Amino acid sequence: MGLVVQKFGGTSVADIAKIKNVAKKAIREKQAGNEVLVVLSAMAGETDRLIALAHQASETPDEREYDSLISTGEQVTISLLAMVLNEMGYPARSFLGFQVKILTDKAYKKARIAMIDTDVIRKELAKGKIVVVAGFQGVDEENNITTLGRGGSDTSAVALAAALNAQQCDIYTDVDGVYTTDPNICAKARRLDRISYDEMLEMAMTGAKVLQPRSVEMAKKYDVPLYVKSTFSDKGGTLVTKEDKDMEKEVVSGITYDRDQAKITVIHVPDKPGIAASLFTPLSERNISVDMIIQNASAEGFTDLTFTVSKKDVKEAQKIVEATAKVINAKSVDVDDDVAKVSIIGVGMVSHSGVAAKMFKTMSDEGINIMMISTSEIKISCIIKRKYTELAVMVLHDAFGLEKKK
Amino acid sequence: MGLVVQKFGGTSVADIAKIKNVAKKAIREKQAGNEVLVVLSAMAGETDRLIALAHQASETPDEREYDSLISTGEQVTISLLAMVLNEMGYPARSFLGFQVKILTDKAYKKARIAMIDTDVIRKELAKGKIVVVAGFQGVDEENNITTLGRGGSDTSAVALAAALNAQQCDIYTDVDGVYTTDPNICAKARRLDRISYDEMLEMAMTGAKVLQPRSVEMAKKYDVPLYVKSTFSDKGGTLVTKEDKDMEKEVVSGITYDRDQAKITVIHVPDKPGIAASLFTPLSERNISVDMIIQNASAEGFTDLTFTVSKKDVKEAQKIVEATAKVINAKSVDVDDDVAKVSIIGVGMVSHSGVAAKMFKTMSDEGINIMMISTSEIKISCIIKRKYTELAVMVLHDAFGLEKKK
Repeated sequence: MGLVVQKFGGTSVADIAKIKNVAKKAIREKQAGNEVLVVLSAMAGETDRLIALAHQASETPDEREYDSLISTGEQVTISLLAMVLNEMGYPARSFLGFQVKILTDKAYKKARIAMIDTDVIRKELAKGKIVVVAGFQGVDEENNITTLGRGGSDTSAVALAAALNAQQCDIYTDVDGVYTTDPNICAKARRLDRISYDEMLEMAMTGAKVLQPRSVEMAKKYDVPLYVKSTFSDKGGTLVTKEDKDMEKEVVSGITYDRDQAKITVIHVPDKPGIAASLFTPLSERNISVDMIIQNASAEGFTDLTFTVSKKDVKEAQKIVEATAKVINAKSVDVDDDVAKVSIIGVGMVSHSGVAAKMFKTMSDEGINIMMISTSEIKISCIIKRKYTELAVMVLHDAFGLEKKK
Repeated sequence: MGLVVQKFGGTSVADIAKIKNVAKKAIREKQAGNEVLVVLSAMAGETDRLIALAHQASETPDEREYDSLISTGEQVTISLLAMVLNEMGYPARSFLGFQVKILTDKAYKKARIAMIDTDVIRKELAKGKIVVVAGFQGVDEENNITTLGRGGSDTSAVALAAALNAQQCDIYTDVDGVYTTDPNICAKARRLDRISYDEMLEMAMTGAKVLQPRSVEMAKKYDVPLYVKSTFSDKGGTLVTKEDKDMEKEVVSGITYDRDQAKITVIHVPDKPGIAASLFTPLSERNISVDMIIQNASAEGFTDLTFTVSKKDVKEAQKIVEATAKVINAKSVDVDDDVAKVSIIGVGMVSHSGVAAKMFKTMSDEGINIMMISTSEIKISCIIKRKYTELAVMVLHDAFGLEKKK
């Protein structure tokens, strides 16, 4: 007997019938002799409805009030689930961030969990109750409500599992696991039985939507086994866990893509120390994340500098960069927001050569031009024209033989 | 310069446009040099929506979870108002029950405020901020969310005004004050400029919906001047305050009615000690409130016992009373749920004789039969057939000359 943490996303709690289905999954774990802690998101669509209200109220909603507003969605679902469980004869109790308490820093809209007080939860679990905790939210030291950013309920679940030393953390979602790539654009996509934390993290960071990257990081740090499962089917599932020998056999485990990309090039920049800092500091001050950065070899004291940002940030980034370009005497600024990023991920890459070459050749054979490349130990990403995204994913999936399990 | 507490009900915050209107009213008080604390209800319809969800989730929703669920409505409106105020250039900060904190007892769904910690509010007011507090909610000593019962936001506002020693508490609503009777059924109804706490309390208890009785009790206890005003017009308003000489001139100040009444008669009850207790204890254990009680003079050791309950409780009450009737050897139980209560209220009654006689004669002249009578120092209530409600209110309004101010 151990503790199982179950996390259900918005589509799993979209109405009372679905919440009753969630209750059944919690009860099944309870009947199997486990302690059960359930973490919920808001009903599908509810957070968006609240965000729309905030933007009707103010063009730039006060961030403290914004977090207080959007955290109500989870308060609704957890109390409803606790009611359903009590009605079904399984004593349950819901807890909000301040009731647990889940202490975070003061960074509204993207707070980080600093500490979880496990006393009240342990007390209720010891009484045999099913404990239901609001995902996505915490409180800072002054009892202000904070939220953890989109997908933050995954992080809440993993953090609770880590703090309570749970035997496993099940992430229930509307798909039945992690796939080699998005089945919506590649029919040959195959569900993975297992994947390492590092691969999952790279996949989440490069476009896979199934888990919030921070939750994977935290699961790795505290060695929490994560199961990605379907709420609507008992089949399938993917275990995200520590690397093992089997995993290394797979050169490439997954292929991801991200169409939310734009490329900015600063042309003919004087190549001297401090230039990169003067370009990127104003961007980070406005909370604009820069992803890939490439600087060409310098010629006659000048260079071109290319980087990518999220498409939604490109207008603001362009303005900022154009202002800086003048100051640093660059020639011009070029923007291309018609690009996408395609990535291949695999722990096996480390010990196999020729992976990058194979990736580049596969795309080149299809006439897909590669604009930018960035690599990590277990990942290679390429920026290409957006219209080639689907094609690139499909030919790479074939080239690396992902359809069949090795 | 003093502190003004403003309370706005659900129709006043039903959408963002209306919340902006509320913001203007708060700003006006601020510009007049006052400190401002605003207490809000949930958007009109929202609490009902949440209650419907609760009843979909469970036939008898767990009360702790129920309170946690329905308290989200106020969390939404207060954060939206704080956003709007900040946007308009008036720094504002919202506070939930646990953030204030508003400490209550543990009686979910009808909690009573035990203590209000005024420290954080005073700190924000001192910074010049407009403070926005969630009505209707508090927390018990274990940080469980509690709610104060329907209309509880009135009580929140008065309790905050009392705790902070406010100069006045303005209750904004969709009518422009307290009337001599309901203008919807009596066109001659006149708005009162002033009314005493005791009269207001009797009116609220006998059917006037404008204020929650407990809020009036509390305003009286702590001597908080209450203004009932319209959110949508600057005209009118009624001051609820201490009794004074002027008020005593009015024999009758108001006429109320309550159609939510049912009458139960236990026939031929053996007249011995303990009978009333054995009848009413099981009702109170099921939280059924008994209003008027009449026991006929005993004849040959037997009596009839008649009482009224809320119409919604009558089915359950009947079952309980029929069970008791068997035990105490009563002959039968008679139920009439086609009745209403009509009341006249006035502090002047104390020093004027013939008020009751005039009430009875006025109704008798119209052929309205009086089934039960109950009196207090400043109120006379009669139970009549429901179909005569409107007629009774109109003829009494005329008979006591309420149309014209004395």
